[in-house]
Parts: sequence; C-alpha cells; structure tokens
Amino acid sequence: MGTQDVLDTARRARAASHGLALATRAEKDAALLAMADALVARWSEVLDANAEDVARAETGGTAANIVDRLRLTPQRLEDMARGLREVAALPDPVGEVVRGGTLANGLELRQVRVPFGVVGMVYEARPNVTVDAAGICLKSGNAVLLRGSSSARSSNAALVGVLRDALAGSGLDPDVVQLVPGDSHESVKALMRARGLVDVLIPRGGAGLIRSVVEESTVPVIETGVGNCHVYVDRAADLEKALAVVLNAKTQRTSVCNAAESLLVHAEVVEAFLPRVVAALQEAGVTIHGDEAFLAHAGVVPATDEDWGEEYLSLDIAARVVPDLDEALAHIRRWSSQHSEAILTEDQAAARRFVAEVDSAAVLVNASTRFTDGGEFGFGAEIGISTQKLHARGPMGLPEMTSTKYVVVGDGHTR
Amino acid sequence: MGTQDVLDTARRARAASHGLALATRAEKDAALLAMADALVARWSEVLDANAEDVARAETGGTAANIVDRLRLTPQRLEDMARGLREVAALPDPVGEVVRGGTLANGLELRQVRVPFGVVGMVYEARPNVTVDAAGICLKSGNAVLLRGSSSARSSNAALVGVLRDALAGSGLDPDVVQLVPGDSHESVKALMRARGLVDVLIPRGGAGLIRSVVEESTVPVIETGVGNCHVYVDRAADLEKALAVVLNAKTQRTSVCNAAESLLVHAEVVEAFLPRVVAALQEAGVTIHGDEAFLAHAGVVPATDEDWGEEYLSLDIAARVVPDLDEALAHIRRWSSQHSEAILTEDQAAARRFVAEVDSAAVLVNASTRFTDGGEFGFGAEIGISTQKLHARGPMGLPEMTSTKYVVVGDGHTR
Repeated sequence: MGTQDVLDTARRARAASHGLALATRAEKDAALLAMADALVARWSEVLDANAEDVARAETGGTAANIVDRLRLTPQRLEDMARGLREVAALPDPVGEVVRGGTLANGLELRQVRVPFGVVGMVYEARPNVTVDAAGICLKSGNAVLLRGSSSARSSNAALVGVLRDALAGSGLDPDVVQLVPGDSHESVKALMRARGLVDVLIPRGGAGLIRSVVEESTVPVIETGVGNCHVYVDRAADLEKALAVVLNAKTQRTSVCNAAESLLVHAEVVEAFLPRVVAALQEAGVTIHGDEAFLAHAGVVPATDEDWGEEYLSLDIAARVVPDLDEALAHIRRWSSQHSEAILTEDQAAARRFVAEVDSAAVLVNASTRFTDGGEFGFGAEIGISTQKLHARGPMGLPEMTSTKYVVVGDGHTR
Repeated sequence: MGTQDVLDTARRARAASHGLALATRAEKDAALLAMADALVARWSEVLDANAEDVARAETGGTAANIVDRLRLTPQRLEDMARGLREVAALPDPVGEVVRGGTLANGLELRQVRVPFGVVGMVYEARPNVTVDAAGICLKSGNAVLLRGSSSARSSNAALVGVLRDALAGSGLDPDVVQLVPGDSHESVKALMRARGLVDVLIPRGGAGLIRSVVEESTVPVIETGVGNCHVYVDRAADLEKALAVVLNAKTQRTSVCNAAESLLVHAEVVEAFLPRVVAALQEAGVTIHGDEAFLAHAGVVPATDEDWGEEYLSLDIAARVVPDLDEALAHIRRWSSQHSEAILTEDQAAARRFVAEVDSAAVLVNASTRFTDGGEFGFGAEIGISTQKLHARGPMGLPEMTSTKYVVVGDGHTR
C-alpha cells in the first residue's frame, strides 16, 4: 500500500464529500441511527476482529493498560452506538447563519456554516475514536479518512466495514467513511501531504504523534490534547475547596489531557495547606515531585526541570511553592502547554488577573481542570480538545468541525 | 542578519505582546491616533525614504505599475493615517464574549476573544500594508512582525520608525511593531520556523509567495488572496444586469484578487449575450481568451487550459460557453481558487443550487465579485481575504485577528 493508494482513497472521499455537503439533516440522522443499530446488531463480528488485535498485543508484550484501551466489549459497543444516537440528536451545524444583514447598498450578506470537505484523523489505540470521529464528521457534513493505530487494525477494519454497510443502506455514499490504507509511516505521510484533497488533519494521541503531524503536514492541522495543566492555590484560597479541587483534578482520571500535572501553592498558605494536600494526595496513591518546601514532607521526591514540563498521565504531580501570584503566572507561562489552568482563590482581584493573564484554552476559577471537556461544556459531542489558537481552541464540538462561506445576494449590484 | 536576529526580534515581540494583550481599548485607540498624527507630521521624512526605494526600482528597470504601487505621496500618507483613525473608531474585539451561560451544575462558562499574541506578516511591494497591518494588529491586541518586500525597505523602515516613536509616546511598548531584520530568504525562513514565538503567519502577495509560505512554514498560516473568480451568466439571467456585472467585475479594478478572471455563459443565451458582452469587454480594452463559441467573434484569442486556471490581474478574461448549470459548476470546481464566484440569474432554483454547490469563500447572486471585500462587507478594516477553510474564510476584519479562550468560574466545583 503506497502513496498512490492513499491518494486514491482521498480522491474518493473528496468526490463523496460533495454529495454529503448537500445531505439534509434528516438524511444524515437516519444514517447515524442506522450506523448505531448496525454496531449493536453485528457485535460478535466486531468482537472477533478485536480479539485478534488483543491477542497480537498480548503476544507482543503490550502493557496491560494499553491492551485495556484496545479491548472492546458488548458494553463498549453499546456505548459507541449511544454516542452515534446522541450525535444524531444534536442540531446540524451546516447551514447555520453565523451573522447576516443587509448592507447600505441593499446587498444581502450572510455568513453560513459549511463543511470543511474531507477531514483526516490520525489517532492511537482506542477503537472508539473510529466510531466517534465517523459520527461527528458525518453530522458536520465531512467525509473522513481514518488512520488509527496499527495495533487496532482488525478492530478498525471491522468497525468501518459495519459503518459503511449502514451508510450504503441509508442511501449515502459509503466513501464518506474510509480507512487510510496501509500501516506504514509512508501512508501517514501521504495523508499529511494531500493538500487540496484533505482539508484538515486532526491528530489525537501522544505528544510525539502530534508533533510529527504538525511538523510534517502541509495539510492544515488542528493540534489537540497535550495537557500540562496547573492548579494554583492562592493565598486567598478557601483551603477546603482547594483540597477537593486538587484531588479531583489529579486523581479522578489520570490518563486524560485535562488532568492536573502541576500544583503551585502560595507561600503564605504553606503551613496551613502543605501537610493536608501532601497527605491527601499520597493517600490517593499520588507521587509528589516537589520543590524544597514539599521535600520537607516524607515520601516527596525531588522535582527537576523535566517535571515542570511533564504531562505524566499517571498518579504523579509536580509541586512547587511560589512567593506570589506573579511567580505563579510566570511559572505557568514558562511551562504550561496552554490547555487548562485553574486558580483557587476567594480574592476577586487575583481571579481577575489570573483569568486575564493566563493564555490557555481554558482558565478555571475555583473549579477542577477536569471540566475542560466537550461533554461537560454541554457540546454533546467532542472530536478533541484543541490547544492551538487558530480556528478552534478548547473542546471542539460540531460547529468547530465546519468552515463558513459568505453568501451575497443582489439585483445586478456593481461597484 | 541571520536566523538569530529574527528569533531575537520575535522574542521581543512575544514579551511585548503580553502587555498589549492587557491594554484597554482607550490605551490602544490613543496609540492609533498618535500613530496617525505622527505619519502626517513626519511626512517629508517618509517621502525621502520612499524616494530612495523608487529611485532604486527605476534604476533596476522595475515595471512602471510596480513602481507606482511603491510610490508614496502626501495623499497616500493621509490615506494611511485615515485608515488608522478608522481602526481606532472600530469596536475592540478583545474581551468580546462569543458565547456564554451557566451549566447545569452551576459553573459559569464563557468563551471570550483574546489576541493571538504575535502575528507575522509577509508581503510584497505596497508600503501601505505596513501601516494597515500595524494598526489592525495593534487594535486586536497582537504584536506584529512585518516582513515587506526588499524593494520597499527604506519606506518600511521609515514608516515603522514613525509608528514606534508614536507607540513609545503613548506609553505602549514599541516592540509590538517591528520589522523582521534582514532581506534574505533566510530571514523569512527563520520567521516561518519560529513556531512557539509566532502564533500565525499571514502572507499577502502573489501565488508564488503564498505557496512558499504555506509549504515551508511550521507556524500556522492563514492563506490569502489568490482569486481566479468566475462569473456565470445563466440562461435565466437578466442580460442587462449580467452585462453590467461582468464589466464591473472584470474592469473596475484589475489588479485585485476579487476581480473576475473567467466568464461562463449558458449555451441558451449565446446569441443574445455573446455579441454584446464581447463588444463591451473589448471596448473596455479587455482581451478575451475564448473557447470556440467566443472565437467566432473578431479579436478573441484562443483559450488554453492555462487560461482557465489563470489569475490574470490584468485586462484579460477567459471565456467559455457551457451547456448547462451542471457544467458551469463542474468547471468552477475544477478551476476556481475558491475565492469568489458569481451567478447571474433570475431563476431561484438555479441561484439556490449555485449557492449550495459552489465551495468558495464568497458566492454572489446578481452581484459583482468586487464586493468580496472587508470594507464593502462593513468590517471597517481588512487584513486580507482568506481563501482557506480553517479559522477565517473570506475578508478578515478585527474579530478574525483573535483567538478565544474559555473562562470557567465555579465555587469549588469537582467532577
């Protein structure tokens, strides 16, 4: 499978995207429901394919937590089907008038949401991304090229086979959902270079994957998901709330990009807060990589510069005492991945400064970083969390999966 | 002047951008007015510098129309100053709440416009872009790195010197407006690779410049301005309106990206329309590059495939008869640069199909392609016209020069 196969696939996607862009909401929703039904009806076929991937991973000595992410169950298939039904229930972003009016010369002007055309998804492990991405792209009128991890190749092939049959049965061109052929880096490279055929690439996965796509792609990229998220406990923090938020942000789920990775504590609350937060974190199984102040507590290990920049995605946290808000802001500016940062404070002026000066996709006051999430924000579906400034920043729902065009209607108007 | 100088400049811009992001509208407007006043007060200094550029260009044998674009006059400086005052009068996009509300759990969520940070502008010839870009970037809270053509180097240095003095006098850090040091391709390359220091690059100029920036840049790019714009005269067109719009779109100003470059005419109106449109265009000095039907008229020259893809920016137009709307749409899909396309028709169904199926930044019904313009759209200022689908599409005003962030306010909320 070489570059040519990838380009042929992209060309078919582009051809199919023209029809999909004109599909009505009713047609797209019917297809989404058919896809959901098919996933449930054909569960054993998908699980058989998945068993191949799981067996290969286990034989190859893949870590247990990665194998777990790969493994499908009837329950997980039900969850994917429910996800598709939820997307069907959401409003159609295509055709939404973003702004509009009549100009002084009588021209009617409106800016209308339209699909991108063809979206490329490059992602790791989890096969549920295959179904989620297909659903969100379909609803937003985009054809999608799916490039999952080779470790999930049998699962992804089975899932896409089921989805494409359902599409064909609903009268939509199945080429709006396709796997990128080939497992090699060459095939990803061909996708990244298919400018003009692919409108946007969305990488989802670890920092290495995202960096390589950002650097090699000539297709526009929406960067997602690396989160070195900070929680700053101000001198004016309510320490009860602070304790609860730090624990929640670090431990409620560790493998996600909106989990806290760094804790900053104002020097004035060291005595009142450090013993409590160290004890609570350690009780929850967290290893604290601390500065001198934290190292005064048993079990804390010394932090290096690497720790300040680290996205652990595990029961680890970097922790430091700062002399004031200025230093907290400077630390965040230096080390943050600009995903989500939280301040704990009852001081309105401190909160206002933190919100104004922290340049991240989400800035939270007295709330856990775990809230930076399309579902929590009420978007109903999320394709990823953008950490770039162009096009979309933060959780991306259906509207973020569209472009716009201007429609200008006159009666023979000239300049 | 090497890569290191460019990176140092970008670092100073980034440092200065933090303060600018927090500047109030009043502070920014005062600086813009001071910049306008300074341009008028120090006109002779700028014109002296410009005379050097003009003399060098003339000695070097530069074409007269290019020298004209380069030449500044007291009137052109007044126009630049007026542009800055108009930007000062526009609303501040920074801080605008794009959406917001209270979530079911009581969290307050709002999405707020924030500056990008540092914007890089790479552009050709016209020195007015230097002032326009500085004004728009300042108002939208962005530091700007200006990389104009080496042919305008003395003019740009003088203009930026004046603007920076005015900034310093208004209490803003002058490093928010800087020239990129060096004339070599190496310095542009350093700018294009300054990911992390520069947030977005906007190339403005010919297709070659834009292509090279798009292909070489690791900094996110907003592509602007190549326009192979089509006018399609439908069988149901009002031929009086059609004639006026075709003439206006082709001849009102030829050197701009929203001028028409291709004319498509429905076969059913060939007899009624071709003799009139050919005569009118030729009378206006336009060379028609036509298909067989057009070649039946004296003075028309044969069109090649190159003509269908050409952005002439001159008194030339490619012209073709199509058997039906389907073929018009197919031709546009094949050849358009997705900037602006117009249909002339009194048939509601044809207009509706054209609007739905043409995938361009602007689709116009019974109106000249020349209306695709920030000023005409009522945006008050325009940094360029985006022909890409990500972030901004069509004329870009102040809001398009911002990103957003989510602000989430709770009272100790956890998941």
